[in-house]
Order: sequence, then structure tokens, then C-alpha cells
Amino acid sequence: MSKIEVFPPNGWVAIEAHNGTDLDVVNAAKVSFAKQSEEFGFEEERILEFLIREKHGSPFEHNFLKFHVRAPIFVVREWHRHRIGFSYNEESGRYVELRPDFYIPQGARIQTGRPGSYTFEDASPEQGEMLAAAAQLQADTAYNSYKELMQAGIAKGQARIVLPLNTYTEFYCSCNARSLMNFLHLRMSPHAMYEIRCYAEAMHKLWEQAMPATAKAFKANGFVAP
Amino acid sequence: MSKIEVFPPNGWVAIEAHNGTDLDVVNAAKVSFAKQSEEFGFEEERILEFLIREKHGSPFEHNFLKFHVRAPIFVVREWHRHRIGFSYNEESGRYVELRPDFYIPQGARIQTGRPGSYTFEDASPEQGEMLAAAAQLQADTAYNSYKELMQAGIAKGQARIVLPLNTYTEFYCSCNARSLMNFLHLRMSPHAMYEIRCYAEAMHKLWEQAMPATAKAFKANGFVAP
Amino acid sequence: MSKIEVFPPNGWVAIEAHNGTDLDVVNAAKVSFAKQSEEFGFEEERILEFLIREKHGSPFEHNFLKFHVRAPIFVVREWHRHRIGFSYNEESGRYVELRPDFYIPQGARIQTGRPGSYTFEDASPEQGEMLAAAAQLQADTAYNSYKELMQAGIAKGQARIVLPLNTYTEFYCSCNARSLMNFLHLRMSPHAMYEIRCYAEAMHKLWEQAMPATAKAFKANGFVAP
Amino acid sequence: MSKIEVFPPNGWVAIEAHNGTDLDVVNAAKVSFAKQSEEFGFEEERILEFLIREKHGSPFEHNFLKFHVRAPIFVVREWHRHRIGFSYNEESGRYVELRPDFYIPQGARIQTGRPGSYTFEDASPEQGEMLAAAAQLQADTAYNSYKELMQAGIAKGQARIVLPLNTYTEFYCSCNARSLMNFLHLRMSPHAMYEIRCYAEAMHKLWEQAMPATAKAFKANGFVAP
Repeated sequence: MSKIEVFPPNGWVAIEAHNGTDLDVVNAAKVSFAKQSEEFGFEEERILEFLIREKHGSPFEHNFLKFHVRAPIFVVREWHRHRIGFSYNEESGRYVELRPDFYIPQGARIQTGRPGSYTFEDASPEQGEMLAAAAQLQADTAYNSYKELMQAGIAKGQARIVLPLNTYTEFYCSCNARSLMNFLHLRMSPHAMYEIRCYAEAMHKLWEQAMPATAKAFKANGFVAP
Repeated sequence: MSKIEVFPPNGWVAIEAHNGTDLDVVNAAKVSFAKQSEEFGFEEERILEFLIREKHGSPFEHNFLKFHVRAPIFVVREWHRHRIGFSYNEESGRYVELRPDFYIPQGARIQTGRPGSYTFEDASPEQGEMLAAAAQLQADTAYNSYKELMQAGIAKGQARIVLPLNTYTEFYCSCNARSLMNFLHLRMSPHAMYEIRCYAEAMHKLWEQAMPATAKAFKANGFVAP
Repeated sequence: MSKIEVFPPNGWVAIEAHNGTDLDVVNAAKVSFAKQSEEFGFEEERILEFLIREKHGSPFEHNFLKFHVRAPIFVVREWHRHRIGFSYNEESGRYVELRPDFYIPQGARIQTGRPGSYTFEDASPEQGEMLAAAAQLQADTAYNSYKELMQAGIAKGQARIVLPLNTYTEFYCSCNARSLMNFLHLRMSPHAMYEIRCYAEAMHKLWEQAMPATAKAFKANGFVAP
Repeated sequence: MSKIEVFPPNGWVAIEAHNGTDLDVVNAAKVSFAKQSEEFGFEEERILEFLIREKHGSPFEHNFLKFHVRAPIFVVREWHRHRIGFSYNEESGRYVELRPDFYIPQGARIQTGRPGSYTFEDASPEQGEMLAAAAQLQADTAYNSYKELMQAGIAKGQARIVLPLNTYTEFYCSCNARSLMNFLHLRMSPHAMYEIRCYAEAMHKLWEQAMPATAKAFKANGFVAP
């Protein structure tokens, strides 16, 4: 498994490259002691747990994960606020004609509570249908307007300003296990926005395959990043 | 002058705090020699020029600029790609009802050329009116839809996905002279998107007042950041 | 108080500039809600506690602290490993003749335990004297050798390689409250090296005066950085 | 070739892992256009040149290089000032007994000129011998003192403060092509300190094998990083 559909058919996350194993994390830490482990065993597992628990984050940086992502713009807006240990290159609405792909929610949510302690509950099926219909309608009329503006000779970068925040975009996202754990801590949280949580969970699954013992120690630490 | 209207009445940049002078840059550099200057004169000017030309960037980091900005989302999307030496906090469409403020272009552009060597020219007045009308129409219908969804009890964070990319948002942006010069180099360039260029030029004006000699040396270096 | 002697007469930390108050942190956070507080009261205190506890770190970045430091090289080696949100400019052994200032420990320590769970105890007065005498002797002979090499015409940058790790150096260190809290979390810890802990405690004292409510909330969170 | 002796027998750089090719850089850039290249040819070479010349740095970040290094402390002090896109884990003088390995210069230099325009020339063979002898003598006496202090029961972290700046240390250094080019630009320069230049040139050679076309375009741009 190297690609996960998040919101089919348009939303997905794929892992296109990774380098660095659980053992590499241990050996980055053990350079402090001028030691190296040849294989990953019980002792190495304990070291990973110790490093995460004690917030020794740097040994988790000597590895590489490259994701290819297709996500709605309002999700990417949150995503790209992650600065440290993250690299991005994204499809440009100035250079290409964006495709008519839009995120249409499968159901609506109701938000209750106050700042700092919001709760979200499922809305009724009717509310869900209302939201989906509105999102589809706005997307369709906006996309028609977008096409007309370009057909009238107006630059793509100006025409696209009519497009809604649920338009899909595509990007590369490279990071390391440390920066990824920071992302996952914040974005897999129940406080995170539902849609970015879906992407975070997909990344978590892909990463777990590449670095299973690190992922296990991270989980054991309550998903608090080192 | 501490606030500049960029696209009145909705778009503006204000400098809310700054700390650190041209002399502080020089003295950060002179710590290498265990020396300090008491005042800024001809010699200090030459040092600034030297530092910028030779790409000695670190002395430009010991200062602080805090901007408060109101800009359209498609501009902020480019802005927030600046990661290093930049801090952001932004109005959240999950927590507040966004205001019905939209960027409506004053004229249209035509894009010619190929990737890497695009040229933009002014479009006809008719094209400009077409773009403005379309942007206003999409914004109005989208905002109505947004309000209806919220009135139906749907969470703000879901309802806002119908809003277009020219919706205004507001944020704090803190940086230092080094990270600002990197931003200005890329965003004041003729290759930059027109709208972010307008913001970059406003920031440049505000910064010039705080650090005139650094700004002068940066200009003399062709706006290439150290 | 803006300068603290850490290891008199040679070691000290001074705060040379700061910008940004506890209220600014709160207002950076409240921009999410398009709100602002005019003054700092009980409600604002609660917001700071919430932000630190929930690891909402970005509002703590919109401020500025510039420290001027004189510390031994083996301390600075640990210090300069802090990369994110830290700016440095340091006295250069290539450009200036370093002064004959050396850190001489006031007492010796004994290290027991295993990697990950070391304990340090005070050594005997005799051991302390032995260490101080050895450190002074090596420093003196090294410094004599350093001077001779320079007098023989050899470049400063080559001559200084004979100097010991307890030689003092001087640097500027700029950061913000978020990056400082990360530093303090790691370097005020009982696991931290004694000498850097002394510097961290001095920085903590200086910072507490600039941002007392943030410092209080940080302490209440067990010095765990957001 | 994956390991280069820099100052035999103690100083070396090895590349322990790398991920990402010249083609990956091109495809990170082409995501802007929602395009991909299947293989690397003349067109792709031109894109690399364009990206470096126009300072489009982000496509060079989606790759990974892990170096293992053994270098003298005064070199590592300069090295670890590179913060962005660099990860480090280093042998710790608090945890292990450092080996009696010291950098002894093969010849001396004479420094002339003024700050900002220094020139270095070879010193006489006599000066070279004087420097080598002094460096060896100080190292030997310091190391004896170090051993005695530890034998007297004093903590390693205190005992090592007598060791000189030419003591060898060992570390992992991970980066990407963008951060590496920044390092190489500054450290392969004729203004850079000779010893770090030797390490930079070794890294350049190792990197050239992993990303030959990127290295070629970087060279064609006068080793100015994008």
C-alpha cells in the first residue's frame, strides 16, 4: 500500500519515497555514545520509547518521507502552516487551468461549545444534503465563470479567484519523522478539522509501514511528538 | 506612516511593532571582531553594503518586524509559503463568521509567453469589467449560500468551503530583516503575481522607514537578499 | 536588571532588546476570532494557560528577545544546536585575538548511572581543586602557545586550535518566546549540563521580567514548551 | 565512492544514504504545471538551470542526503551554524570518553589584509613545523590531563573542558540539495576557512555522484545557491 484514497475519487495521499528505518533513528541517537546497533531488537525498541518520552527529537530527523497529495484548498491552507521540516511544491493556478474537481462533504456537522472547547456533532441527513447541494452548485457556477473568463482571454491567475475553497489542488510534501509527528500530533487530534484529520490518518498509515517501531512508540506516548 | 492601504477599502498592511536599527545590524556583524560602533556613519554604511553583497545574512536577523495584514486568500496562499523566519496567526473560518469582503480586480490582465518567461499585459476595459462583474457575482452568490448554510445550523468551517479565493482574511506576520528581504526579493519581482507585489511594495515602504540604510543597501544590491 | 553574572567575572547574559508583551501573545491568538483585548486581566491569563497546555505555539512567536552572552565554548557548542527561531552572531577566532578568559569550575562532579539515567553528585573538595588546577594549567600553557604562534606570524585561525574548550566566547542570540521556551525546557532540566543550566536560568530570569504572565503559565505547565 | 578521507587518518566524510534524483527535482518543479517528466533529457537540464538561476529553491528540497562525518571541533563549530534544512546528532563528551585524535595542520598560513578582504598565504616550512609541534604538544598534555581527571573520578563532561579545539568529534548530518547548496556556496568559497573548505569539497564530490545534473547547473551558476 503506497496510496490511500481519502475522499474518493479526488482526494488521496501517496508516499512516493522514503528513506530511513527505525534502526537509523536508534543509530542517530547512539552516535552520542559513539556506538551503533547492527539490528533492531528489544533494546532498540526501548531506546525509541525513551527518545520520544524524553523529547529527544533530533534522532528522528535523519530520514525522509515524500508524499504526493491531492486535497481541497481549505485543507491545504491549514497544512501549509507547518513550516519546520516541511517542503512543498504545489500546482499553480497561475500556470495551469485547474480541473473541475471539488470536495463535496458526505454529511454536515454542527458546532457547539466555546472557543477552546468546541464539540462537533453530526447534523441531520437533510442538513447534509443541503450542504452537499450548495457546495456542488457554487462549485459549478464558479467553474463556469472561471472558464468563461479564460475564454475571454483573461489570465488564469485572475480568473481562478472566483473558484471556491473546496477546489482540489495537488502538491508534494516532504518531511522527516520528527516533523511528521508534530503534524500528526496536531492534525490527528479530535480538535483538528475533520477533513485534515482524514489526511493525517492516511499519512499515519503510510508512515507506520515505513517505520513501525517509531510509530508504535509514538502511539504509546499518546501521539505527543518528541 | 504605519499603515498602507493596498486595495482600499479592504486590503491593507500595517506595521504594529519593530525593534532593531541599521546600527544593530552593524553591531551584530562587528561582534565577530569583538567591536561595536556607537553611531551610524559612512563606515557603517559600507559594512551594510558589504554584508548584503557577500551574502552574510545572519547579522540581519537580530531585529523584529510585526505586520498586521488584510489580504485576499489567493494572495495569502502564496505568502504563507514563506516558512523560514516567518511567524503567522490568522483569522479562522472555523471559529468566526467571515465578513463579506472580497477583492474585486480594478482591471484584467492577459498572460502570454511560456512557463518561465510569462508576460502580463493590461486587458481591455471590457475585459476588466467582465472580470470585476464575475468576481462580484460569484462572491455575492457564494456569500448568500454561506449565510444560508450557517442559518441552517451547519458548522462555520463547513459552510465557508463555498466561499471564493478572493475572500479577505486577516493575519499577523512577524519576521526579521533577513526573512523580509527574501520575501521582497521574490515578491517585488516583475515575475511575482501583481496582487502580492502590491503588498510586498507596501511592506517595503514601511520597512524602509524603520531601517533606511539597510533598505538602501538592499536596493543597491538589486533587491537580491543576503 | 538586564544583565546577570553567570560565572563571574567572565560569564554573563544580558538582555539587550525585547519587544512584545503578554498581551501581544493573547492578541496574536485572538486574531483567529477576529478579536482583540485592550488590557491584560484574568481572562487573558486563562488564555495563556490554555495556549501553553494545548501546545498552540504560534502566538508566542510574535515577539523578540535579543541576548548578549559571554560563555565557554563547550557551553556554546550545546547552545548553538538550537536552530529553529534562534539567530546567532559570534566573536570569530579567525578575525580577533581571543582574550585569556577561561571557565574554571568551582567544584567537581561525579557521574553515575547509565545512558538515559545519569546522576551527578558533588565530588570532594580535593577533586574540585584538582579539576580547577588542571583547567587553569592547561589554559595557561595553551594560551602561551597561542600567543607564540601568532607572534611567529601564524594566522589567528590556525593558532587558536590549541585553545581549550573552556575558552570564553561572546555572541548575540535572538529568539522569541516560543523558541526560548523550547530552549528552557531542555536546558533548565535536571538532565541538562550544569553550566548551560546556569545560563538558561539567567535567561529565564531576564525573560520573566519582560513577559511575566507567559513565564508563569510556562511554569504552571511544568516548563513544557507549547 | 561513498567515503572520502579529508585529513587522514582521522578526518573523513561518508555519505550513508541518499534519496532523490535530478529527475525528482524537475518533477517537483513541474507539479506547478500539473506535469511530470518520465526521463531526464535536454529539456530537464534546462529546467534545472532555470530553477537555480531564478532562485526557485523549493524543488531542490524533496530529496535527502545523510552524511557521517569526523572532523575537528573548530570546524564543527562553523558547520553547526547552518540551521535551516540541516539535522545533526553528535558524539557527546558528556557520555563517552573522547579518543586521542587531534587535527595537526600540514602547514601554516599567514593572514594579511583587513576585515572583509583577508588573504591567506602559505607560511614557511619552519612556521608549519612550529604549528604542528605546538598543536601536537598541547593535544598530548591536554589529553593526559583529561585522562587523569577521569581516573580521579571526575565526570567526563567536566574533564573534557581541558581538551583543545582540534580534538576530533563525529556526527551525522542530514540535509537536502537546497540546504547543501547553501552550505557549499559559503564553505567552498575562497573566503571560507581552509579546513571546512576541504570538508565542503568532499561533500560536493559525494553529492555530484548522486545528483550530477543539479551539481552541474549549480556550478554553471557560479556555485550561487537558489
